[in-house]
Amino acid sequence: MDTLDAFAASIPPLDGNAMDAARQRQNRLTKPPGSLGRLEEIAVAVAGMTGVARPSLARAAVVVAAADHGVAARGVSAYPREVTRQMVANFLAGGAAISALARNAGARVIVADFGVAGEGIAHPDLVDARQGEGTADFLDGPAMSVETALAAIAAGAAIVERERVAGLDVICTGEMGIGNTTSAAALTAAFTGAPPEAVTGHGTGVEGAAFAHKVRVVEMALTRHLEAGLAPIEVLARLGGFEIAGLAGVILAAAANRVPVVLDGYITTAAALAAVAIAPGAREYLIASHRSVEPGHRTALTALGLDPLLDFRLRLGEGSGAALALPLLRAATAVHNEMATFEEAGVSET
Amino acid sequence: MDTLDAFAASIPPLDGNAMDAARQRQNRLTKPPGSLGRLEEIAVAVAGMTGVARPSLARAAVVVAAADHGVAARGVSAYPREVTRQMVANFLAGGAAISALARNAGARVIVADFGVAGEGIAHPDLVDARQGEGTADFLDGPAMSVETALAAIAAGAAIVERERVAGLDVICTGEMGIGNTTSAAALTAAFTGAPPEAVTGHGTGVEGAAFAHKVRVVEMALTRHLEAGLAPIEVLARLGGFEIAGLAGVILAAAANRVPVVLDGYITTAAALAAVAIAPGAREYLIASHRSVEPGHRTALTALGLDPLLDFRLRLGEGSGAALALPLLRAATAVHNEMATFEEAGVSET
Repeated sequence: MDTLDAFAASIPPLDGNAMDAARQRQNRLTKPPGSLGRLEEIAVAVAGMTGVARPSLARAAVVVAAADHGVAARGVSAYPREVTRQMVANFLAGGAAISALARNAGARVIVADFGVAGEGIAHPDLVDARQGEGTADFLDGPAMSVETALAAIAAGAAIVERERVAGLDVICTGEMGIGNTTSAAALTAAFTGAPPEAVTGHGTGVEGAAFAHKVRVVEMALTRHLEAGLAPIEVLARLGGFEIAGLAGVILAAAANRVPVVLDGYITTAAALAAVAIAPGAREYLIASHRSVEPGHRTALTALGLDPLLDFRLRLGEGSGAALALPLLRAATAVHNEMATFEEAGVSET
Repeated sequence: MDTLDAFAASIPPLDGNAMDAARQRQNRLTKPPGSLGRLEEIAVAVAGMTGVARPSLARAAVVVAAADHGVAARGVSAYPREVTRQMVANFLAGGAAISALARNAGARVIVADFGVAGEGIAHPDLVDARQGEGTADFLDGPAMSVETALAAIAAGAAIVERERVAGLDVICTGEMGIGNTTSAAALTAAFTGAPPEAVTGHGTGVEGAAFAHKVRVVEMALTRHLEAGLAPIEVLARLGGFEIAGLAGVILAAAANRVPVVLDGYITTAAALAAVAIAPGAREYLIASHRSVEPGHRTALTALGLDPLLDFRLRLGEGSGAALALPLLRAATAVHNEMATFEEAGVSET
């Protein structure tokens, strides 16, 4: 728990001076003040996060955290559990959606195994952050121990530290794990107080009776595990996943280092709920890329006070929405950094 | 008028075979079917437009059409008329918002003078498409003659033809012209039947009494010019602008050549209303990049049946929203063209 206190203490507030300087600059650029709407707001927010009045988002990484879930054995997913492992291979081969989207956005992809079922996967590009062969089924007991949750957070934080050495202006969050929308639903209900039926969605394609069953699984998990006075790390350990805890670590470490974090869909936002419950200051470093089809995603975003940039009816995960939004963020900094001022361009004002 | 009939006849329908092939491919890619939402729809739509089952949007141009408006003398803008000319210089120097956004998106910028007030501007990169020194004030008479509107359309079409020689997969529309939201409001009211007060907005910053005056100017223009049985080109000539007619030409020529057209905000969408009124088939080649703050933009998009990709509260024009959306469109084709299929990746299906 000391690690978590250290995180909470080390996350700086937004840099008000950098934000003021950014706002002043926006008002001198050759456009009517405010006419670029959210692009202006993004530039000011990123200035506050980074502490740089004219910030760059050039060096971007997408962390795709993969792990399996014990609860997948309960029939909560349309896909078999081995798909987690198969998709890790697809990420490493560059054939997945996130592979194409990250290339399109000019971001590097970091694939991290936080605990895929079966043996460890040998691949030179795969980050070994394994915490086991998938979590335990949280209908039988906690998904993982608090110690393991802390280890996963530390492994996620270590990825950020390594990427910072390589050069990191912004980090996109992504995940893969058959069954993980069930874990995200349980965490979102636990952290926001929303009822299970309001935050459980169709995942990758669970319909009809299987969907009703999924809602019941989330209800049973909450009944079993929620009790008064639980620390956020205990909630995360009981209901989370290795990759979700790992992403909470990514978020905490990024915030501690003034690196903006781009959230993807439901699972990464559940990780953000955990991270913000642990260290509220992390909230200021979050950017919501899109609103997922998953109904609980809206609940989680509202609880975090985030307004997503895109509503493209995505429900894939992997970091797809985060990578999709990256060029929009870079557009905001391009305008902010590259436009001429009224004085420079000799343009008349109102 | 023969030119317009030729356009209407030369615009092909969407290619259903290419769309079917694109849909089939989407369903074989390593993701749950439909899980990439609008990205999948964009890929299929672009396949239909281009007639290519795996289309590229690599070679992109933004046409920024500039012209002045006689109605600007009526005090409908927050900015003086000379700003049109000053901003043309800013575009050419690379210091405007569209300059930064096009660089960010990897698109070339074509700046075209369709009739900026004063003498012609000498610059090697400026396309001379001048139809006069700004339109006439449409409260006194037609903004331009039908012959001039046809000439502006032809000049816009000629830009597309030249750019096709250089290589053109997608074209973004942009504009600059102090007073042109007033012209766009009049055109939108004329083409959609919406009342002037519903389609007149604050432009670059017209407030209070000046805004009420702007609404009255639009009302007076409609009272003066609208009559039963007007051809679309007559509506465009009476209420339009040189740059708006030019952009209608860009849209018609792009559609005739199967080049997808990315609309920007209110003015470019008013140009699209004119183009589609002239040649209804052009509708199929339009992509709406964003929803502007201008209230009439929503009316115009609804009339065209278009659902914009972004809602960023932009109200700048120049093609800013179109360039901003370009990476999203390319993300759709990147996913479509580059992802592995289930068979290729050895991933299990439901």
